[in-house]
Amino acid sequence: MNADVTGEAKGGVDRKIMKVLAGESVWPPPVWIMRQAGRYLPEYREMRARAGGFLDMCYNPDFAVEVTLQPIRRFGFDAAIMFSDILVVPHSLGQNVWFVEGEGPRLDPIATTDDVARLGERDPHLHLEPVFETLRRLRRALAPETALLGFCGAPWTVASYMIAGKSTPDQAPARIAAYADPAFMRALIDRLVETSIDYLVAQVDAGADAVQIFESFASALSAPLFEPLSLDPIRRIVSGLKARRPQARVIVFLRGGGPNLARLVEAGFADAIALDWSLDLARTLPGIPAKLPTQGNLDPLALVAGGAALDAGIDAVLAATKGRPHIFNLGHGIVPQTPVTHVERLVERVRGS
Amino acid sequence: MNADVTGEAKGGVDRKIMKVLAGESVWPPPVWIMRQAGRYLPEYREMRARAGGFLDMCYNPDFAVEVTLQPIRRFGFDAAIMFSDILVVPHSLGQNVWFVEGEGPRLDPIATTDDVARLGERDPHLHLEPVFETLRRLRRALAPETALLGFCGAPWTVASYMIAGKSTPDQAPARIAAYADPAFMRALIDRLVETSIDYLVAQVDAGADAVQIFESFASALSAPLFEPLSLDPIRRIVSGLKARRPQARVIVFLRGGGPNLARLVEAGFADAIALDWSLDLARTLPGIPAKLPTQGNLDPLALVAGGAALDAGIDAVLAATKGRPHIFNLGHGIVPQTPVTHVERLVERVRGS
Repeated sequence: MNADVTGEAKGGVDRKIMKVLAGESVWPPPVWIMRQAGRYLPEYREMRARAGGFLDMCYNPDFAVEVTLQPIRRFGFDAAIMFSDILVVPHSLGQNVWFVEGEGPRLDPIATTDDVARLGERDPHLHLEPVFETLRRLRRALAPETALLGFCGAPWTVASYMIAGKSTPDQAPARIAAYADPAFMRALIDRLVETSIDYLVAQVDAGADAVQIFESFASALSAPLFEPLSLDPIRRIVSGLKARRPQARVIVFLRGGGPNLARLVEAGFADAIALDWSLDLARTLPGIPAKLPTQGNLDPLALVAGGAALDAGIDAVLAATKGRPHIFNLGHGIVPQTPVTHVERLVERVRGS
Repeated sequence: MNADVTGEAKGGVDRKIMKVLAGESVWPPPVWIMRQAGRYLPEYREMRARAGGFLDMCYNPDFAVEVTLQPIRRFGFDAAIMFSDILVVPHSLGQNVWFVEGEGPRLDPIATTDDVARLGERDPHLHLEPVFETLRRLRRALAPETALLGFCGAPWTVASYMIAGKSTPDQAPARIAAYADPAFMRALIDRLVETSIDYLVAQVDAGADAVQIFESFASALSAPLFEPLSLDPIRRIVSGLKARRPQARVIVFLRGGGPNLARLVEAGFADAIALDWSLDLARTLPGIPAKLPTQGNLDPLALVAGGAALDAGIDAVLAATKGRPHIFNLGHGIVPQTPVTHVERLVERVRGS
């Protein structure tokens, strides 16, 4: 590995997001957008039409590097996030995963402790090597001041797909399994914790400055399930990663985690907390230590609407976070129908603040 | 109207739920279950198979009374909630509403202020008369100690169906409309507030002891939208109802309202707060005044799982709420695959506490 791929800025190069992740308030705040390499961009849609399946694209560094760079060229975001999907992890463990156009992911569901024991016949590191190659190429292609982000799904979110075989309202199949067969759920979560640590370590080694853990489905977890299925597994991933790569920085995104956000903050292991759009910053930020970096939380649909609603939404986030270490972002992924001009407006307004 | 249908218990008759709604702690707590008249009951499925469409069933007092009484006969719940649907309100305003088996409701979407102006050609009171007849018959059929509950959807929840024409993830079409066309959204919400007040007044006149307002989709509202689209319209409904029927009691259910729950509590207009299953009572109850009644919040999927998870879940709710004015309930509607024996277990365990 050479100095270009350690994920550390070289002498004199400021990566604004890394300064924020170190607890410094940077103004105007750095900005990137969740799912910024995506279908709202015509150049992405063109690449996508020429690519094979969605997972093929994730495993093809030529495609993945190009679509990761597209929004950087257009908008000059302060971070590039590698183009990939959280479901490459179950795929790397041997579970069958595919994407149905217009519907989303499908997996052959797993249901028992035996199914968990059978996972992992494929070599995860070998299988995910294209992801790491994508990161290495991205670090070389990016300007030194642009941060490079990796990511994975949190175990509960990934497990809910692995059990249901698809996205399900309130993750009902996985929640029933959690109540009815806790040994199975524990085995699956443990397996995902171990694999995610290895995966994130390799991402950092390949050049990721920081990684984001996506707990997209925190909102459906009841009090008895949140600690064992969400908070504790994420804690173990972060501590496992940091034990091996102390320089790694971790952003944790609990989507819909409002009621449980305080527990994540108190747990203290996240380097930054990504806030979803439903959170009222005026009420949420006073509960977050002033030096703990935050990220978010504009409603992606205010970005679709544009106009006065967009300007007011941007200004409200800026006003609430001024003086704090904050990374400007949406409160969830950008949606396909977002006009590109609205994204331009967002970047201008944040940078002009 | 005779004394039987005023919704007030006659001399010496205790309706436990009404005592709790007056701020008294009753032990063991009264219990009912959201969507207790539903598909988990074989006798409901049999009635349903013989009925016409779902809405026909809501408008047929013979059916509606019978299915409302089914769970009361089986389990002796402390409250009967009239069998109906929140979408009878847009239907009463002239919007086309129908139910697709296995998929849910469908409506001809509305999109403009003109569409709102065209609503209401049908006489709402005349259209909803079968609902009131159902309530009158129920009050006569129920034992004096069983409370009778009416309900309506909160304006935002109902509006999100009216705009999208169906249930949609995170209510995206309605949220975009809220940002892009606030005048339309305001007109629609205002219309629903007025109609809901009339509707609830008539429910109370027909014998409802208390009503529950269902804000099923609170979780997707960003900070700038929550106050104007959810909190303020519910406040106006409650104050409009109480101005005309001071004896009315109102339970407000903000599903997924975790981050905004404190605002509802502070607003102070709800007689009781129904808590969804994602809320950790140990963290939530200290923020709710000791005399403000609560309801909930067992995970409906713990009831599906049964066994140790069910017992632990019931015991946790009981332990957290002991000494408070609390109505035992689920944190959301019971789901069709719930075994009837698990409901029996729940009632026994709550009553034996």
